[in-house]
Amino acid sequence: MINLRIPGPTPLPPEVLAALGTQMISHRSSEYRELHAEVAAGVGQFFQTKNDVFLFTSSGTGAMEAAVVNTLSPGDKALGISIGTFGDRFMDVVKAHGIDLTVLTFPMGNAADPVKVADAYAKMPDCKAILITHNETSTAIANDLVAITQAVRVHGNPLFLVDAVSSMGNVDIPVDTLGLDVVFTSSQKAWMTPPGLAMVSVSPKAWEAYKTAQCRRYYFDFGHMKKYHQKHETPETPAVAALFALRAALRVMLGKGVAETFLYYRELADYTRKRLTDAGFQLFGDQSHASNTVTACLLPAGASDEDFRGILKKQYGVVVSGGMGDMKGKIFRVAHMGWVSREDIDQAVGAMEKVRDDKGTVR
Amino acid sequence: MINLRIPGPTPLPPEVLAALGTQMISHRSSEYRELHAEVAAGVGQFFQTKNDVFLFTSSGTGAMEAAVVNTLSPGDKALGISIGTFGDRFMDVVKAHGIDLTVLTFPMGNAADPVKVADAYAKMPDCKAILITHNETSTAIANDLVAITQAVRVHGNPLFLVDAVSSMGNVDIPVDTLGLDVVFTSSQKAWMTPPGLAMVSVSPKAWEAYKTAQCRRYYFDFGHMKKYHQKHETPETPAVAALFALRAALRVMLGKGVAETFLYYRELADYTRKRLTDAGFQLFGDQSHASNTVTACLLPAGASDEDFRGILKKQYGVVVSGGMGDMKGKIFRVAHMGWVSREDIDQAVGAMEKVRDDKGTVR
Repeated sequence: MINLRIPGPTPLPPEVLAALGTQMISHRSSEYRELHAEVAAGVGQFFQTKNDVFLFTSSGTGAMEAAVVNTLSPGDKALGISIGTFGDRFMDVVKAHGIDLTVLTFPMGNAADPVKVADAYAKMPDCKAILITHNETSTAIANDLVAITQAVRVHGNPLFLVDAVSSMGNVDIPVDTLGLDVVFTSSQKAWMTPPGLAMVSVSPKAWEAYKTAQCRRYYFDFGHMKKYHQKHETPETPAVAALFALRAALRVMLGKGVAETFLYYRELADYTRKRLTDAGFQLFGDQSHASNTVTACLLPAGASDEDFRGILKKQYGVVVSGGMGDMKGKIFRVAHMGWVSREDIDQAVGAMEKVRDDKGTVR
Repeated sequence: MINLRIPGPTPLPPEVLAALGTQMISHRSSEYRELHAEVAAGVGQFFQTKNDVFLFTSSGTGAMEAAVVNTLSPGDKALGISIGTFGDRFMDVVKAHGIDLTVLTFPMGNAADPVKVADAYAKMPDCKAILITHNETSTAIANDLVAITQAVRVHGNPLFLVDAVSSMGNVDIPVDTLGLDVVFTSSQKAWMTPPGLAMVSVSPKAWEAYKTAQCRRYYFDFGHMKKYHQKHETPETPAVAALFALRAALRVMLGKGVAETFLYYRELADYTRKRLTDAGFQLFGDQSHASNTVTACLLPAGASDEDFRGILKKQYGVVVSGGMGDMKGKIFRVAHMGWVSREDIDQAVGAMEKVRDDKGTVR
């Protein structure tokens, strides 16, 4: 048995694997429209939003591009916040579309400082949007969206475009309460579903911005999408099998309850961090902003990333992720999102202890 | 049992349904790289190309956009050929990116006339690309790419950007022999795989064009894709379950053989047309350019589209497509791509005869 503890694709529970064996249907049928409506409504419950939640057939990066091209025009000023590799990717997407981007970065392992974000925004009188990652998967650090939105709104009212790819669904991000304008996630993270679907919420203010947004786009166009979404369809052929899977996953998640789901992952994150610390691993980064879906640890002293993760996988069937960018070879990352129990964490941490303590003796 | 005779999503054979039940793996693992390499190579055999064949997580329309944004710049002149709804969509994608497009249309039910295409091209000295649909799903008509490329090349050497979404894999389109520059298809058509993957080949000439192409892009960028593709990965998380499915489908298809597959669908198309004609249905469009993956018929006299297709589905489990655009309410379309046998066609046509002859008596 493989214990897949990477931050996506996450393991599929039996209900989801079974749903994937469903025969194809027409995407222009009442069966599809029921499927689409149930999935969009279910996802919306976890987003805690009344906004439309669109279902794009793409990875989360496609949704990143959708957030940008539907709300901004080349030359628009925007403030981008990056605390790691996925923040940097968001910035790359924005730059590819000719946005006049000011980037505020924080060292890996840290969250964005709300005061610094608000100060940077206050110095940009024409800033139309703030782009930010909620849960930075590369460092296992979560930004405090409550504090950041509050601090910024003292100075003005920009669009908030939020990457919640690896947290939404498992973590409490009340989209409407926080006034987040475009928020996106993808199916292979919290949602216990294969990759291939990105879910994107669009606020009334984002729709206002859409009216004048000049970035060129077709596949990711929100207007085109909305026309079909309101009849519970998509403009192009959607990833039907992934929708079957997501429906099954949502039934499991909603069976547990939305608030109960958020609590489960918060407690599981606490448990994982305690289990790792008790086992003598050193957590990476500012633990006051630790992610509730993934945890990063320093590699054990003397261990190479290749050996440590290689032996973990080969000997114990535990698959964890390495560091990305500047953190490559320095940290490893254990995911606790989607289909995961305390027993999975116990097995993973137990194996890590053995690999660390036996280092050099097994291969 | 449903007999899903629409031009995608097509039914999944048991091998593919079983493969969809495979547990997730990391997309940065040797298991994934083997999967990716096998799928890309297998798809390339049906494309008959030495070009890279990229695997994008999107529908075919996403690949349409990829073909345009990676080879052209706003203001570039291009000639677009449309013989139906999907040709029109291709034109919409091109226009969305500010290309200076000349559109040559042919009435629905007709193929593009190679002489007229060549004449139009000859009058456009700066034309960089010709965009054309191979198999127009909305009218069940296939363009003659051999005649068209030959006629055009008397006058010059534009890029050929080809929508082969609903034919590639079942129909002989020798990409390298014909010198087609960007050719794309999607998983839910000939490939017996759920929707969610688009496969795109890129010629050396298309790579030359890429160097100067200024259309803004990120998710669909070929350069970004190539960097990962050469190590058998994708830049973003790919639709892993769809890749498992496509690998299983390719093993079935390659087990039959590439040439044998093309022959099978050509003969099945002949069989379908004969079966429909013998049953008294009137084929729609220029039969000298009939598609080998989908057939269009006029609706029986006096039958409404809603009744005819509704009763077919409700009483006999046969799902066919209606007309699109101007053809809505005038034709119906029967697909014979992907997982389909003569028995499926017999059952479908038999049911159609009954619905036609019993019209008004069942509901």
